[in-house]
Amino acid sequence: MLKEVSKKAYDVVIIGGGVVGYSAAIYCGRLKLKTIVIEKEIGGNLAKIDDIENYPGFQKISGINLVNKIKNHAKNYEVEFYNGEVVKVSKTKNCISVKTKKNDYLAKTIIFCTGSKVRKLEIPGEKEFEGKGVHYCALCDGPLYKNKVLAVAGGGDSAAKEALLLSKYAKKIYMIARNKLKPNPINDERIKQNKKIQIIEDNQIQEIKGDKFVKEIVLKNKLNNSNTLNIDGIFVYIGHIPLSDLAVELGVKINKNKEIITDKESKTNIEGIYAAGDVSEGKFKQAITGVGEAVKAVYSAYEYITKKGINFRCTIEH
Amino acid sequence: MLKEVSKKAYDVVIIGGGVVGYSAAIYCGRLKLKTIVIEKEIGGNLAKIDDIENYPGFQKISGINLVNKIKNHAKNYEVEFYNGEVVKVSKTKNCISVKTKKNDYLAKTIIFCTGSKVRKLEIPGEKEFEGKGVHYCALCDGPLYKNKVLAVAGGGDSAAKEALLLSKYAKKIYMIARNKLKPNPINDERIKQNKKIQIIEDNQIQEIKGDKFVKEIVLKNKLNNSNTLNIDGIFVYIGHIPLSDLAVELGVKINKNKEIITDKESKTNIEGIYAAGDVSEGKFKQAITGVGEAVKAVYSAYEYITKKGINFRCTIEH
Repeated sequence: MLKEVSKKAYDVVIIGGGVVGYSAAIYCGRLKLKTIVIEKEIGGNLAKIDDIENYPGFQKISGINLVNKIKNHAKNYEVEFYNGEVVKVSKTKNCISVKTKKNDYLAKTIIFCTGSKVRKLEIPGEKEFEGKGVHYCALCDGPLYKNKVLAVAGGGDSAAKEALLLSKYAKKIYMIARNKLKPNPINDERIKQNKKIQIIEDNQIQEIKGDKFVKEIVLKNKLNNSNTLNIDGIFVYIGHIPLSDLAVELGVKINKNKEIITDKESKTNIEGIYAAGDVSEGKFKQAITGVGEAVKAVYSAYEYITKKGINFRCTIEH
Repeated sequence: MLKEVSKKAYDVVIIGGGVVGYSAAIYCGRLKLKTIVIEKEIGGNLAKIDDIENYPGFQKISGINLVNKIKNHAKNYEVEFYNGEVVKVSKTKNCISVKTKKNDYLAKTIIFCTGSKVRKLEIPGEKEFEGKGVHYCALCDGPLYKNKVLAVAGGGDSAAKEALLLSKYAKKIYMIARNKLKPNPINDERIKQNKKIQIIEDNQIQEIKGDKFVKEIVLKNKLNNSNTLNIDGIFVYIGHIPLSDLAVELGVKINKNKEIITDKESKTNIEGIYAAGDVSEGKFKQAITGVGEAVKAVYSAYEYITKKGINFRCTIEH
């Protein structure tokens, strides 16, 4: 037996509470789509960034301020927000069922704005000392290390940015890259001019040691020589893992980096399912590119719903 | 004989001075690319919009303010700006030659951010009365029509927005659409609630008449019946024509709407040539989507230049 639940169904369920999800919400509101944003964590990774200088329109703004500005912008429209975690998504006859721990939602379309999580080193000592010298967020935990000696694991642009931020507190920072350092030119220059930062390339971190707190790390270079550095803490920035597992449950295609494969209009391989921002495929992931993708995803959802017309009813087997 | 001019060559020449071009400039600056923005007109079409409510981060901002914010943001970086019109682009041996009336530039890559121009009705009287009752910008010329009777030609979302703005001045507005009105839902609702606006669907404007100034327009409906409306002015919003002619000279492919065909990374069919914003292919053209595309274009240019390496020299036949 089929139960008609079209009146309760959402046109769009946005999964993810970051600037990407909130920007999608602005446009859903403007297009009068019945919408809910399900946010596990408000702001996501961006909220943990100190200075954002590359969102066109704001010369310098903190991550959390940008998140709040865009969320408040979305609140101007008739859009619902729910603070919770989606635990399961599945196809119904015509729509998609979205379950959080407490609630069930029915969606005509879904936009995945789930972002990514930090990649860990996966070495001995990392888990043991997490929060006791092992950290993943300079803005959150950097101030604990005034005049201390730190290591930054990673050679990319975000590692560089975090090392620069940490240099405001620490007296010395070893920046350790497995291969060569490769930040964007502007941060490369800043790193090289910063006397507190010492670059160690072509070295892998093998182990993190300590007693109550981190005391040292063991490095190995490409010639297999080991070396030990005395440090008070280590901050890890070796990349992110896209949070695409839920989408995969629906049959959405991902690439080898676990990014959801999307086209220019933010469509996935399944009609009615879209993705934007860090969870989706892209070489250059910025807040502004994610926001642009979100807007395209909303328009794709709007077109899909409009094309289906008034007969687009969500039914669920009962 | 080949003349070496690599030192004078720009990594990126951005053609177009709007939010899209200026956002590209921000990222070029951050990536330390030698860059010039050639701007024929500062701000483009966006500068003529009264209220922008859909650039995530700004709940309400005027077009010109948004343009200035993003241009000032770009000025934080080492990027050149030149106020002039590009009259010719052509391929050299390795690069692209860009000529304005006064200057010649050599570019390793080009980003077309040339936007679009307003589409005209192309009917008798339109040209004759331009500026004397025939207008294309409510923000520029709307205040001239306090308590007057106006027509708005067009049935899309921008026509709706402009009619709403004109209703602040005029006492009555006929909104005339060839087919059915189809603004976005939020503006559709506003139009229907606005008592000054009378909607006339399924009518084509045949002619604009007057003496010194516009006095009336002649309509024809789908049954071929004519009708005359007395008006004091008419504002035309029937779409835009992408400014892609220069790109076509280089062999860049366009679609039937004259939009430059681009992929998800803002690449055209020619290596080293990119396009973003209104001039490029897209179903839903917003400031924010154009800005996102601009950032992707810059990264594509950066990757292309980096891949070519230090041997990437521009040479020109002499």
